[in-house]
Amino acid sequence: MSDPAAPCVIDLNADLGEGFGRWQLTDDEALLSVVTSANVACGFHAGDPSTMRRVCELAAGHGVVIGAQVSYRDLAGFGRRAMDVPPDELADEITYQIGALEVFARAAGARVGYVKPHGALYNRCVHDEEQAHAVIAGVRAAGGALPVLGLPGSRLHEAARDAQLPVVGEAFADRAYTAEGTLVPRREPDAVIHDPDEVVKRALGMARDQAVTSRDGTRVALTARSLCLHGDTPGAADLARRVRSELTASGVRLRSFV
Amino acid sequence: MSDPAAPCVIDLNADLGEGFGRWQLTDDEALLSVVTSANVACGFHAGDPSTMRRVCELAAGHGVVIGAQVSYRDLAGFGRRAMDVPPDELADEITYQIGALEVFARAAGARVGYVKPHGALYNRCVHDEEQAHAVIAGVRAAGGALPVLGLPGSRLHEAARDAQLPVVGEAFADRAYTAEGTLVPRREPDAVIHDPDEVVKRALGMARDQAVTSRDGTRVALTARSLCLHGDTPGAADLARRVRSELTASGVRLRSFV
Amino acid sequence: MSDPAAPCVIDLNADLGEGFGRWQLTDDEALLSVVTSANVACGFHAGDPSTMRRVCELAAGHGVVIGAQVSYRDLAGFGRRAMDVPPDELADEITYQIGALEVFARAAGARVGYVKPHGALYNRCVHDEEQAHAVIAGVRAAGGALPVLGLPGSRLHEAARDAQLPVVGEAFADRAYTAEGTLVPRREPDAVIHDPDEVVKRALGMARDQAVTSRDGTRVALTARSLCLHGDTPGAADLARRVRSELTASGVRLRSFV
Amino acid sequence: MSDPAAPCVIDLNADLGEGFGRWQLTDDEALLSVVTSANVACGFHAGDPSTMRRVCELAAGHGVVIGAQVSYRDLAGFGRRAMDVPPDELADEITYQIGALEVFARAAGARVGYVKPHGALYNRCVHDEEQAHAVIAGVRAAGGALPVLGLPGSRLHEAARDAQLPVVGEAFADRAYTAEGTLVPRREPDAVIHDPDEVVKRALGMARDQAVTSRDGTRVALTARSLCLHGDTPGAADLARRVRSELTASGVRLRSFV
Repeated sequence: MSDPAAPCVIDLNADLGEGFGRWQLTDDEALLSVVTSANVACGFHAGDPSTMRRVCELAAGHGVVIGAQVSYRDLAGFGRRAMDVPPDELADEITYQIGALEVFARAAGARVGYVKPHGALYNRCVHDEEQAHAVIAGVRAAGGALPVLGLPGSRLHEAARDAQLPVVGEAFADRAYTAEGTLVPRREPDAVIHDPDEVVKRALGMARDQAVTSRDGTRVALTARSLCLHGDTPGAADLARRVRSELTASGVRLRSFV
Repeated sequence: MSDPAAPCVIDLNADLGEGFGRWQLTDDEALLSVVTSANVACGFHAGDPSTMRRVCELAAGHGVVIGAQVSYRDLAGFGRRAMDVPPDELADEITYQIGALEVFARAAGARVGYVKPHGALYNRCVHDEEQAHAVIAGVRAAGGALPVLGLPGSRLHEAARDAQLPVVGEAFADRAYTAEGTLVPRREPDAVIHDPDEVVKRALGMARDQAVTSRDGTRVALTARSLCLHGDTPGAADLARRVRSELTASGVRLRSFV
Repeated sequence: MSDPAAPCVIDLNADLGEGFGRWQLTDDEALLSVVTSANVACGFHAGDPSTMRRVCELAAGHGVVIGAQVSYRDLAGFGRRAMDVPPDELADEITYQIGALEVFARAAGARVGYVKPHGALYNRCVHDEEQAHAVIAGVRAAGGALPVLGLPGSRLHEAARDAQLPVVGEAFADRAYTAEGTLVPRREPDAVIHDPDEVVKRALGMARDQAVTSRDGTRVALTARSLCLHGDTPGAADLARRVRSELTASGVRLRSFV
Repeated sequence: MSDPAAPCVIDLNADLGEGFGRWQLTDDEALLSVVTSANVACGFHAGDPSTMRRVCELAAGHGVVIGAQVSYRDLAGFGRRAMDVPPDELADEITYQIGALEVFARAAGARVGYVKPHGALYNRCVHDEEQAHAVIAGVRAAGGALPVLGLPGSRLHEAARDAQLPVVGEAFADRAYTAEGTLVPRREPDAVIHDPDEVVKRALGMARDQAVTSRDGTRVALTARSLCLHGDTPGAADLARRVRSELTASGVRLRSFV
């Protein structure tokens, strides 16, 4: 719960640069005028070098912080298929991706400011201690003690803390929460909230009160310094713009956590 | 021609880390005790992240300079198939590879010291001005004004000079030269010298006299600060060791150009 | 020039299934209700297995003939970057792609009815005799003496004829032609015709008169048994539907060449 | 237990064609003079089109039956990293691989005679019902009711039986067995038998008596119609030859199960 006298501050993050060659997915330009943190795909689930360069240049131009959205090596599955990658290999794959993005961030006059796992790796690192530690080992090898953006309470955050890396918790305005404060799994009905008004309302509550109403109707405290906006659904950019303008209108300050 | 009073200095470079996952090709450990510069594959024609990390660690341990061996994106063809990559795309692909290697070099306490194109890209950049400039644009975007190792007189070296990047010429002790000082194309007979004694003898001549006897029997001056040793042929490590010991025995000093 | 008494018959072909995993590109369902021949991507420039299966099932359901749209192995470049693939390798890559599509065609109760190269391979095989022969060798190895859809007068068609494979010429209603009957290169102004009315008009002329007006205003005879419609531009499906309905309305019969 | 009066018949299978482009792994030519069934890599964990063609030609020349060694799509991990591929996608990936191999088998005058999953997919399909059914669905979609080579008692074999596909059990002469007749997991000590004499002895026992001594010293019955020989270890071809000659010398007949 935030101090009612202090102005609320929240970060908005979204996945960007998730095209590959001829294929485009995210409206990078539109979303970069909304978010404060850009999770940029690094080539393993999406993100060719030219897209990475362009998104880094745009992000730097908008003053948006660049984050490495690291993934399993799986273009065919868009990083959504969990893989039993041996820990050493996984750590090296993470390091590789951060390095590949870092050079484009630097060329754009910026730097990689944080790391966030993508898709199946994100989900796996909520519970899987071995992979969580491997990801963190990869982040550490890349140097710079980068903050790790992820789910509060995840194994990933535990491993990051063990390694003295800063952690940043995020919340999802378009996802239902259980009474325990965890996400309702996608396979369950009503896991995803589609009504834009409801999404905006929840975003406001998350930012101002650090809390959300669970699907059981109970009030659940969150510790989210960032809200994740989705960039690859129809109308995503419009909804993101609306969330931003209503947050701002209600006195919430938007600022990256870096 | 070098000053006969001054000690000769030459660099030895070889392609390393050219495995991919389960497949290994080069005897990295053996060659790292011979060469002074390691052209490390960056994942586009060969080189998975774990191999890159390992080779960087070994190179740093041996005091061998790490170079980015950049390539077309072509694992299936091992980077040996020339590709009409649009210049902007090619530049970005080069930058990406340098960044991916840089993070492993840094993690090993070293840095990327130079860039050398691989295979078909190397050959194409001898004559192709557009691709040569694209490669150099990619090197410049990576920052650090990295030296470019390549064929003396190549378009690549011209483009590097135009961009104020240092150039380093290399010679091939196991390749026949024309009277004009260019390499005899591989498709011609006797383009490659297989006799180890002859290879060693030519390496000595190249290092001490900065010259070689062409296939026509004429004497040709070279401007090679580095000799390229092949790492992927049977007996490669043994021949490399012999070249090194005979160079040293005859007073040639082995030292990286970085 | 066709017999004025005989009904005109033409085939309509389009590139389909050009997504990959999460990425979609072509409106396969809409186009399959328009075309009579579907050039299905086989996994080398686009086309994951599930998309291939789905497009084959849809095509079979619509009675549309399935063709193998074979390509260089280049997902990152969408097969638009010419590659110097050695002929034997290229032939084997073509055979592989045909086989991979054939199994899905068969599972859908159909079969692969023809072959058409994609993108840079298509363009290269207009002039490059070696690659044209390699593609044809790959088609022959796949068996079945498949017809080869391509540019009339191309090396590809010459090589196909040499190998006793049927050839089918195609024309492009949205491309300008020279007085010699060749396509105006894309890099020249006015190479592509964007006005839908003009495209429809040219399609009608091509189908009924086997002729087109060149950019110089001269009348050029064509020998096209098929018209290529583009599927990956905005409004592509609408334009394709219009071409089809106006062709039909004017008495042209639409029928595959297989 | 076999009828002592009847001659023993066994199949020998090995993984072949497991190179990719420049990288070679298995001594295909040597092993094809030993085995009766060749598990040919189909491009997803290894196996480029030219290698597939060559191995099919060699196999056809030796009268060795060609099997599709299907895998997860994972070149970087050589198919050894289990992946949570959705069942429909997995089925389609299996079908694709079988089709790609089938065309080369046919071009060599042969056909694909059976299917065997590779690496992590093989191991996962021992226990994972969903993936086992997906693999079998992919095999069925490829047509021809291909026999499925695998571990006796595996979910894969159950799923194959449910789908009316023939199943063929295999045994491993170089692996330790538990008293229950299952393989000792590789992570346990003594899981792999390295002594060539012991491997040969066990192969003989498996072929003649359909039994093996477990690591606890008990006698365990097996139902193996095929013995799997490893092709990618040092000395693999020599050991395979010895197994073959001693089997033959002791009256065991070598014959494919197809």
